[in-house]
Amino acid sequence: MHEKEISLAVIQRLPRYYRYLGELLENDVVRISSKELSERMKVTASQIRQDLNNFGGFGQQGYGYNVEYLYTEIGKILGLDKCYNLIIIGAGNLGQALANYTDFERRGFYIRGIFDVNPRLEGISIRGTEIRMIDELEDFMKNNTVHIAALTIPKLKAPAIAKDLVRMGIKAIWNFAPTDLNLPGDVMVENVHLAESLMRLSYNLKALEENNDESDKN
Amino acid sequence: MHEKEISLAVIQRLPRYYRYLGELLENDVVRISSKELSERMKVTASQIRQDLNNFGGFGQQGYGYNVEYLYTEIGKILGLDKCYNLIIIGAGNLGQALANYTDFERRGFYIRGIFDVNPRLEGISIRGTEIRMIDELEDFMKNNTVHIAALTIPKLKAPAIAKDLVRMGIKAIWNFAPTDLNLPGDVMVENVHLAESLMRLSYNLKALEENNDESDKN
Repeated sequence: MHEKEISLAVIQRLPRYYRYLGELLENDVVRISSKELSERMKVTASQIRQDLNNFGGFGQQGYGYNVEYLYTEIGKILGLDKCYNLIIIGAGNLGQALANYTDFERRGFYIRGIFDVNPRLEGISIRGTEIRMIDELEDFMKNNTVHIAALTIPKLKAPAIAKDLVRMGIKAIWNFAPTDLNLPGDVMVENVHLAESLMRLSYNLKALEENNDESDKN
Repeated sequence: MHEKEISLAVIQRLPRYYRYLGELLENDVVRISSKELSERMKVTASQIRQDLNNFGGFGQQGYGYNVEYLYTEIGKILGLDKCYNLIIIGAGNLGQALANYTDFERRGFYIRGIFDVNPRLEGISIRGTEIRMIDELEDFMKNNTVHIAALTIPKLKAPAIAKDLVRMGIKAIWNFAPTDLNLPGDVMVENVHLAESLMRLSYNLKALEENNDESDKN
């Protein structure tokens, strides 16, 4: 099982390789050299060779990478050769945005249920999936295989719902609530903390302005 | 300007410190030791000391950190002592979700405009901000100071709009479109690639299952 030795940093980069290779495939590109891929991705060619060598090295000297093969293999490593059933907890704007995102299905992530506490949303259909009330969640979890739960609910409600989901057997949570969930180690959590992302932007903006001020002085 | 020497990894962690310290403040905690903060944040105490020492070290031996002081100082480093005007390009579900997020304002990010191409959305108000048509963008940019543009538009449209925004003077883009924008180096881009986040989750889920399979065999 060579995958287990791949470093976290490489794993973090794999989805981006996958996206680029997918775009190449859409444009009917059959082969690509690490130099060419490097120019597109703004990553050094040696970084690319090193990353891809990590799981076998799909390139041949002077020939480049077979795009489709590499795309498929990285997909397998990312677990994208399987299908995942996803539910969304919280049918507000963000939950609805996720439910409307057709890109996820293309990658094998299928939205099977959307839950909310607001009775005014009950029965409204989003791309064929009806919004259900949260008290139906337990039954739903008993009668369906659910791999991933997306949490698009307020931060104060998220930890309790996450615990309930874990009790009901969920093993992966995609957390959009701006809080850490502190769940058992065998539950995978991927956080999307939007406010933190925005703060990185303000930090960079401030650094940029300070640099400009410095150059103005010189 | 000691900030400039802070490593990227520390910067990446600062928003999380800021969030935790904000929560402590809300709960009227005045002081906290690195040990206590470490237990809450699931980061080693030595990591915390090292990180915070990076910009002066706000702690005193045996006394701990002054929460409010540390919160304020990290806020300054993140540029949160200033206000930022933000516009949203794309008034779909995701754009509306961002516009409805009151948390951003609390941190000094104010949504000043929302733009779309869909005439059916024209004039609809989201928390006091009217949706405008995209052909009004250039005039709007001339008459207003805009620091950040959030792009919540399809991937094929994002690169062209981003270029337009840069031409109109924007220096920071918060990009939700699943594509890289390739802008000049003095334009800050923060990407939120949701599909990539989901792939990290499927990778981890797959690794978890393989581990379980292994233990079943043993």
